[in-house]
Amino acid sequence: MYDLLIIGSGPAGVSAALSAKARNLDFLWFGSRALSPKITKAERVINYPGLPSITGTEMRDAFLRQTGSLGISILEERVNAVYDMGGYYTSVVNEKMYDAKAVILATGVSSCREIPGESRLLGRGVSYCATCDGGLYRGKRIAVVCTDSSLEEEIEFLADLASEVFLCTSYKDCGIRRDNVRHTVGYPMEILGESRASGIVCNGETVDADGVFCLRSCVAPAALLPGLAAEGGHIQVDRQQRTNLPGCFAAGDCTGRPYQYAKAVGEGNVALHSAVEYIKKAVV
Amino acid sequence: MYDLLIIGSGPAGVSAALSAKARNLDFLWFGSRALSPKITKAERVINYPGLPSITGTEMRDAFLRQTGSLGISILEERVNAVYDMGGYYTSVVNEKMYDAKAVILATGVSSCREIPGESRLLGRGVSYCATCDGGLYRGKRIAVVCTDSSLEEEIEFLADLASEVFLCTSYKDCGIRRDNVRHTVGYPMEILGESRASGIVCNGETVDADGVFCLRSCVAPAALLPGLAAEGGHIQVDRQQRTNLPGCFAAGDCTGRPYQYAKAVGEGNVALHSAVEYIKKAVV
Repeated sequence: MYDLLIIGSGPAGVSAALSAKARNLDFLWFGSRALSPKITKAERVINYPGLPSITGTEMRDAFLRQTGSLGISILEERVNAVYDMGGYYTSVVNEKMYDAKAVILATGVSSCREIPGESRLLGRGVSYCATCDGGLYRGKRIAVVCTDSSLEEEIEFLADLASEVFLCTSYKDCGIRRDNVRHTVGYPMEILGESRASGIVCNGETVDADGVFCLRSCVAPAALLPGLAAEGGHIQVDRQQRTNLPGCFAAGDCTGRPYQYAKAVGEGNVALHSAVEYIKKAVV
Repeated sequence: MYDLLIIGSGPAGVSAALSAKARNLDFLWFGSRALSPKITKAERVINYPGLPSITGTEMRDAFLRQTGSLGISILEERVNAVYDMGGYYTSVVNEKMYDAKAVILATGVSSCREIPGESRLLGRGVSYCATCDGGLYRGKRIAVVCTDSSLEEEIEFLADLASEVFLCTSYKDCGIRRDNVRHTVGYPMEILGESRASGIVCNGETVDADGVFCLRSCVAPAALLPGLAAEGGHIQVDRQQRTNLPGCFAAGDCTGRPYQYAKAVGEGNVALHSAVEYIKKAVV
């Protein structure tokens, strides 16, 4: 049982991780060694106190040097889901599970847009994990939604199993060339289905499917953690960065505007301090 | 009429000022060229993202280089009071007044502890400004409360005018040597008086006085801005850093714990963005 899971490696995650280390917590930090695509895309940042007029890449490198020098490592694994176990949290990371007393969500907003129907049908034909659920669709028709080309290996794996794949990518230059894969560039309007997923609507076309895989570098908050209160795509938090679930905190862009480095860094710090207070009292 | 006044030059004030500059606001920034005594007192900061393991002095120097390089200047004048004029704010800075559409309070918490009776008797025998009100006490008995040795010149000025001065300093090594000044080290328990200030209680002793001067590098929030809602010594704010007064925002330690650089920097950024939104709609 860990003290804490920090999910996300943008500025909010970095800030939470630095303070978690300072407070000697036993924590896992999930994210990317590239930290966050949004950081590196920034051409120039002039209003972050302490780092005058730097590029996004320079900021990322400064963050990485700092976490590295403190021996903080980033687990480069995608968290598919987190479950509130009533007193502690379990995260599902590919085939592994990690338990912790508290969680800080610092998942950002980019590419996390939930598809209508997605969270309702999650676990009932909608899956986030090719490795976990691919085997269920051997010889069947599936739809795959992908927002990150680094995840194409998972599409290949699914195409090996399924008879037909309808693939929607949010990016151009998709590298998948398979006879049983039909590709379109776009983001789905809806996942269809009553008791189970039955198809997908993308670019005005309705395609039947036995299962729908959503492969994204991040997951919509309410889909990531069932029961989490969100509004307008943002996780609801109070001034202490507490969500509606005890022991679950959120920080950074995922809690709303302004989408600013300084704001994210501040919220990551506050979330960590609230988590420390919570963990001290937690009886697990 | 300025767009904005930023009061305080700790990390929250720095963050607000950097973003105010980035947003091209017409603003005044009040504080100290030493930024904040709390910054420089920090022996080592290990959890501020972007500045790995630095001393407080190094952080201050980094902040000063950055604001300096953008041509942002700090007005080294003490703001004695801010008044909500119903639609805009007026600040009283020694003998001068500055009007603005919005205000960000980033006043910190150190030495800002209000003395019981202080805000009730402010303007009725209690004063924050030797220059403004000293002349009223020529040949009279006064009490002076001082928390910052850099303000001792004001005590000298008052001692030139008053017949007797009872001086309470919160620090040792007071530099005042005058026949008409009696000095004690301590912080007053209470300012006495019904319709007007009549004396002060310090270190268990009650001393009569015609006037009480409180000389501090900062002022208790509710005393600084009449009508401002505070609780437990902290200014009450929402997630957008809005106070109970429209157009007045607060950020940093003055809004509560954790007292952290990252938290202050984040709140300064958010306060500025909320102020920008407010100013856009303001009709002055």
